[in-house]
Amino acid sequence: MALSMYDLSVPVFIRGLGQLSHVLDKGLAHATAQEIDTATLVNARLAPDMFTLAGQVQSASDASKLGAVRLADITAPAFADTETTYEELQARVAKTLDFLKTVDRASIDGFESRAVVVKSRRGEMHFTADRYLLQFALPNFFFHLTTAYGVLRHAGVPLGKMDYLGTF
Amino acid sequence: MALSMYDLSVPVFIRGLGQLSHVLDKGLAHATAQEIDTATLVNARLAPDMFTLAGQVQSASDASKLGAVRLADITAPAFADTETTYEELQARVAKTLDFLKTVDRASIDGFESRAVVVKSRRGEMHFTADRYLLQFALPNFFFHLTTAYGVLRHAGVPLGKMDYLGTF
Repeated sequence: MALSMYDLSVPVFIRGLGQLSHVLDKGLAHATAQEIDTATLVNARLAPDMFTLAGQVQSASDASKLGAVRLADITAPAFADTETTYEELQARVAKTLDFLKTVDRASIDGFESRAVVVKSRRGEMHFTADRYLLQFALPNFFFHLTTAYGVLRHAGVPLGKMDYLGTF
Repeated sequence: MALSMYDLSVPVFIRGLGQLSHVLDKGLAHATAQEIDTATLVNARLAPDMFTLAGQVQSASDASKLGAVRLADITAPAFADTETTYEELQARVAKTLDFLKTVDRASIDGFESRAVVVKSRRGEMHFTADRYLLQFALPNFFFHLTTAYGVLRHAGVPLGKMDYLGTF
């Protein structure tokens, strides 16, 4: 009755990206209604040295793509971070969802002890797959979803936490 | 080899609250160095109708406490949301950690199908325990951790994502 690593990763990412798309839609509706240039939203950020909304969406895409790829030990499709428009950000979310739907449950389940290495500017971080999922992949994914939401909230978009969590 | 619901909840909450405490510490160090009144940070928020830093910390506390309590079908200690100072916010985190450490693994593991009901202003939401954990408790917990981080970043506190994720 315990939960499998696939259940804890791919469907969680898919649900979260769906909510990100919904949050972006609400941002677009607000921009349209208020006659705000959508580029203002795409380039908005919470601090000068934080990523913009575009960077948060790209990071949420990467966090989920790399999360699934590392757990499954497969090769990631390359997504160049070239999105500069609202439509391109929505397309980035859509192609990430398309990729996640191709990840095979059998490539993840049962591999809790698989070695996962994350390279960063400060060196390599070594994990087992289960620890990577719980301590890095999931917190990192939700970080970028929430910060995208926060950027839009800060820019005046009317959103509530259920827009982030989704419907039940 | 799959992951148990206890592993997916209580230790995740404990680690996250530890990082929240660390992030708050960095905020305090910044306020001290810059001679900023800590009340300015406690009352900071990203949008006029969002919670302040105090509200985010209280919500992260509640999200983890209620997450564990609902999964374990036990009674929650009452934490009044009366914190108005930085020290009180750190104490709130500490007492939440103290409570989480008392939650028995045996009260959570194996109860994936337990009925969980969350009451909100819009009515009741009904879950099985495993779905509640993955679709509500974890995303909600990380939402408040990340937003607390975002409030402090927006206020100029020098933080990086590893302050949120922790060390490995």
